[in-house]
Amino acid sequence: MAINNEIFSLMKLLFPFNRSITGNGVRKTLQEIKNYIPLQIIEVPTGTKVFDWEVPPEWNVEDAYIENSRGEKVVDFKKNNLHLVSYSVPVNKILRLNELKKHLFSLPEHPGWIPYRTTYYKRDWGFCMAHNRLLELKEDNYKVVIKSSLENGSLTYGEFFIKGKTQKEVLFSTHICHPSMANDNLSGISVMTMLAKYLYDLYGNDSSGRPQYSYRFLFVPATIGAITWLAQNEDKLANIEFGLVTSLLGDDGNFNYKKSRRGNSPVDKIVPFVLEKKKKKFEVLEFTPYGYDERQFCSPGLNLPVGRLTRTPNGEFPEYHTSADNLEFISPEKLEEAFNLFVGIIKTIEANKKYLNLNPKCEPQLGKRGLYKSVAGNIKEYELALLWVLNMSDGTNDLVDISNKSGIPFDVISKAASDLLNVNLLKELK
Amino acid sequence: MAINNEIFSLMKLLFPFNRSITGNGVRKTLQEIKNYIPLQIIEVPTGTKVFDWEVPPEWNVEDAYIENSRGEKVVDFKKNNLHLVSYSVPVNKILRLNELKKHLFSLPEHPGWIPYRTTYYKRDWGFCMAHNRLLELKEDNYKVVIKSSLENGSLTYGEFFIKGKTQKEVLFSTHICHPSMANDNLSGISVMTMLAKYLYDLYGNDSSGRPQYSYRFLFVPATIGAITWLAQNEDKLANIEFGLVTSLLGDDGNFNYKKSRRGNSPVDKIVPFVLEKKKKKFEVLEFTPYGYDERQFCSPGLNLPVGRLTRTPNGEFPEYHTSADNLEFISPEKLEEAFNLFVGIIKTIEANKKYLNLNPKCEPQLGKRGLYKSVAGNIKEYELALLWVLNMSDGTNDLVDISNKSGIPFDVISKAASDLLNVNLLKELK
Amino acid sequence: MAINNEIFSLMKLLFPFNRSITGNGVRKTLQEIKNYIPLQIIEVPTGTKVFDWEVPPEWNVEDAYIENSRGEKVVDFKKNNLHLVSYSVPVNKILRLNELKKHLFSLPEHPGWIPYRTTYYKRDWGFCMAHNRLLELKEDNYKVVIKSSLENGSLTYGEFFIKGKTQKEVLFSTHICHPSMANDNLSGISVMTMLAKYLYDLYGNDSSGRPQYSYRFLFVPATIGAITWLAQNEDKLANIEFGLVTSLLGDDGNFNYKKSRRGNSPVDKIVPFVLEKKKKKFEVLEFTPYGYDERQFCSPGLNLPVGRLTRTPNGEFPEYHTSADNLEFISPEKLEEAFNLFVGIIKTIEANKKYLNLNPKCEPQLGKRGLYKSVAGNIKEYELALLWVLNMSDGTNDLVDISNKSGIPFDVISKAASDLLNVNLLKELK
Repeated sequence: MAINNEIFSLMKLLFPFNRSITGNGVRKTLQEIKNYIPLQIIEVPTGTKVFDWEVPPEWNVEDAYIENSRGEKVVDFKKNNLHLVSYSVPVNKILRLNELKKHLFSLPEHPGWIPYRTTYYKRDWGFCMAHNRLLELKEDNYKVVIKSSLENGSLTYGEFFIKGKTQKEVLFSTHICHPSMANDNLSGISVMTMLAKYLYDLYGNDSSGRPQYSYRFLFVPATIGAITWLAQNEDKLANIEFGLVTSLLGDDGNFNYKKSRRGNSPVDKIVPFVLEKKKKKFEVLEFTPYGYDERQFCSPGLNLPVGRLTRTPNGEFPEYHTSADNLEFISPEKLEEAFNLFVGIIKTIEANKKYLNLNPKCEPQLGKRGLYKSVAGNIKEYELALLWVLNMSDGTNDLVDISNKSGIPFDVISKAASDLLNVNLLKELK
Repeated sequence: MAINNEIFSLMKLLFPFNRSITGNGVRKTLQEIKNYIPLQIIEVPTGTKVFDWEVPPEWNVEDAYIENSRGEKVVDFKKNNLHLVSYSVPVNKILRLNELKKHLFSLPEHPGWIPYRTTYYKRDWGFCMAHNRLLELKEDNYKVVIKSSLENGSLTYGEFFIKGKTQKEVLFSTHICHPSMANDNLSGISVMTMLAKYLYDLYGNDSSGRPQYSYRFLFVPATIGAITWLAQNEDKLANIEFGLVTSLLGDDGNFNYKKSRRGNSPVDKIVPFVLEKKKKKFEVLEFTPYGYDERQFCSPGLNLPVGRLTRTPNGEFPEYHTSADNLEFISPEKLEEAFNLFVGIIKTIEANKKYLNLNPKCEPQLGKRGLYKSVAGNIKEYELALLWVLNMSDGTNDLVDISNKSGIPFDVISKAASDLLNVNLLKELK
Repeated sequence: MAINNEIFSLMKLLFPFNRSITGNGVRKTLQEIKNYIPLQIIEVPTGTKVFDWEVPPEWNVEDAYIENSRGEKVVDFKKNNLHLVSYSVPVNKILRLNELKKHLFSLPEHPGWIPYRTTYYKRDWGFCMAHNRLLELKEDNYKVVIKSSLENGSLTYGEFFIKGKTQKEVLFSTHICHPSMANDNLSGISVMTMLAKYLYDLYGNDSSGRPQYSYRFLFVPATIGAITWLAQNEDKLANIEFGLVTSLLGDDGNFNYKKSRRGNSPVDKIVPFVLEKKKKKFEVLEFTPYGYDERQFCSPGLNLPVGRLTRTPNGEFPEYHTSADNLEFISPEKLEEAFNLFVGIIKTIEANKKYLNLNPKCEPQLGKRGLYKSVAGNIKEYELALLWVLNMSDGTNDLVDISNKSGIPFDVISKAASDLLNVNLLKELK
């Protein structure tokens, strides 16, 4: 199957599940991912302390609806899991319309769309519905039924790791807690699954060699999931050289790269470099402490080199956090473009080595090594690349830096470096 | 009385006095200021060594005029003290017009205005007059009378100090040596008097608590007065964290902030920040070693964190150093605007604290502390401010920095910090 | 003789010589230069190891031509030495046109010009000719004769040194290996000769005093000559404070200054400063590892403070490396302008001292030292210069920095510094 269909098919499969920060919707989602990669699924019990937080009760829903006095369901969780406010407590009562309305959420400015609401850390309940439907509700006695459970259980997340030649690690993290919405964040889940599979296919069996870096993929509920992983893996954090929080990859907006809090991490150099190379329109955003799990990775006491890559950022498209963020809103082509961008980033990370010129005093004589064939005055790009690599390989510049400074494509710079290495004019710096 | 009238009234009262770098005009000026604040008036004897300089003889004038052969006074110091070149020596002689003219100063390009001239450090004499009047002078014998004295006495300056919680000091300095001119510098004298009174009213009695910083106001003759204070107070200079030379505050031009020599002192950050906040048009000027007493405060061996705040800078309006810089040239509204700007600067200095996030690993759970009430996707400015303060409070950013980086108003940032302090998520750094 | 004619006359004299990286053409060129300055001529034997390279066999040519079957010379080295590819091996054979053409070079886009080609490090031969002439060649048997020698001999270069007050050195280097082309590089050779003579006339005899810096001029074959000098003079390199590779000085394009690899060497400050001062249009180019001998001086293991000054850069004018780069292509006026620019650079280097203010606390009283004569409000540029020099002379700024920061011409700043030195308010820092 072509990669765009593969990504899209997984999204279609996962779309109906009722995901939240805990519960069976998440568990089923991770099980499906396990069909692609040997994902490790971790269960962290309710009540576990994770930094300033603790793992909340597990939430599951059997049924939820509102029925009018004629027995007609005016709202039904089974038709769309967005109808129920996430983490709603169990309810079974009859309410007049004015009392009911205190628990109803709608979007007057988009009267046909159902909003997405949660009440994770406050015991409450509510329903979300299209504003048009809400206006149709008449004075009546409404029966409200929520058959949910909030009980000791666990928070569930997935982790996939590929060991590289060194402990230095590349981290990808995506959130898995949103129910039936496509761009936010089945797009992230599905693209990351296929990216992990891509690496697994390349490096997954013992005979296939190892990548330069280790790669770690996290499929975690937003906020509490990232915090849980960070709290339980503090010893691993120093290995992270390069990280990306990913989400919102299927709409037709341009890519938006949001810098790490450090602002000059390797990721802050590489991602814009690859976007430039691929001649995409994109924006680079300064770090802000609001958004997705970069909030946690980039908290001041961790300050990890983790940026964020999305298309149109959270909150900047009207369909955001509504039922209009559905499978029609995104496209296989855009998902594939995102997938290819991540592949390009990984390839660049893997290839972006740093060398030391072993003949640093004056140029070496390239002609006698068969590397330099120009007649005077007619130098070619490849030969210029040889000169740039030699001149800049003083221990401070990697190949991306040299490509940036010279304006010569990375692949040409990389080939030149490789050829110079072969004739012992360079050595690799680790 | 409204503050604009209060400032303007003091200017009217002080306008006629014959100020110079020494003498009774300065002494009387400081006595009037003493009606507002408990000003300390310091007398430094003639001949006192102050760095490379020494305090000059004290100059006082009883009378000065030029009389034609018919006994008519063609120039009369009693009508306008600008007529007499400051520090003119005593004279009593009869001169022909061509000899007299060597001692007359006028402004051909502004024939109705009297220029302002001084001869502090060269024993000489002269008269300033409107060019129109000078052209009317006919060949004649002119009697020149200057009843001045240049004798051992003292240089007089005023100092007002309010003790804060720490020795760290905010310095305001303004020059008091100019005779009857309004913008330069009765505007500075009068606004600084009212600013000192504002602080005195807030913190002046023992029961009222102390400001974060100590505040020092200097009312000094330009150059020699600033040098005298600096030479006699070297032990205090290390306490100065923040300083402003002030002048030219009443014309209708935009504010001009001239940076300290360091260029990145706290004052260089705070003053533009407050001007931005107040949505004023303003210019920021690089440091130059010419101007007012910032020349001395920012000499290379002292290099104090002292900037300068004026409206239209010295020399950049035609009325500068002429009789046209009078009470009509300035307005109570512009003086009040300047006063309010200084109040804003002081409030910002006082409120601009630096905190340390005590829960720096991941975000703290704000909801359980009652600070975070947003439903997902609908964050408010105040809640964003909480996140910004937490994320940036790593010991390097103060609240002004956080406001600048976040684009959130200082007051909102400040409130967020205060609330986070109350729930023990921050501690203040000193 | 006026300097423009002097420069141009030397170029005319040197134009016909058959220069290459070794051989008698270079030797004769250096002998002619010796008529102007006591140039040291150094011979380095074939086979000498110089870093990664070795000195090649010496190449000389007695005759070279191609004759058709009627005995007509269709190409003749004696008419233009560009006809023969430099370092062509001896040949004496008869070839059909199609075989001959493999050794012929022409420029279809400029059919009347002869290109310039070399084959220094690959044993081969070839002829260059106008494309129009090449098209006229008919099917025939062609006799090819190259009476050249490639034998043990030496590489020849010239060096001229003037000792200054310190060992700190200013280096000028120009390449001497190009045959009959005017801009590249008889312009560099001739302007450098006259610049060396200018310094020799000033400082050449013992009674005339010494310049602040030592000056070294190198007249070297490109690449191998620069490498040879560097390899044999490593002990001297630490003395170089300031260096320029020079070439292409006679066309009518603007000056182009190419920065040293360091990017912030003194030369990178001074050359643009002097160009600004002379109100020339010019470009500043970032360092690249391609071009002239800055490639060697700025190799990463040497990283010398050496920039490059040309008019239109190499390869950016169509006449570059062709017979159209002849004496009509350049002009005496442009050569003189270049000469004067170098003189201005040297004068600025010599005058660009750094001082320490000996009275750094507040301003010194300039009036009592006779340096300050302004009446208040009417300061002159010279007096501003006094204040700038005093304020900035804290050990970090030299006079060029002060001129840049103040916007006051260098000569005024320099005069102010000199006057302040005379009254003991400054001391010179070495």
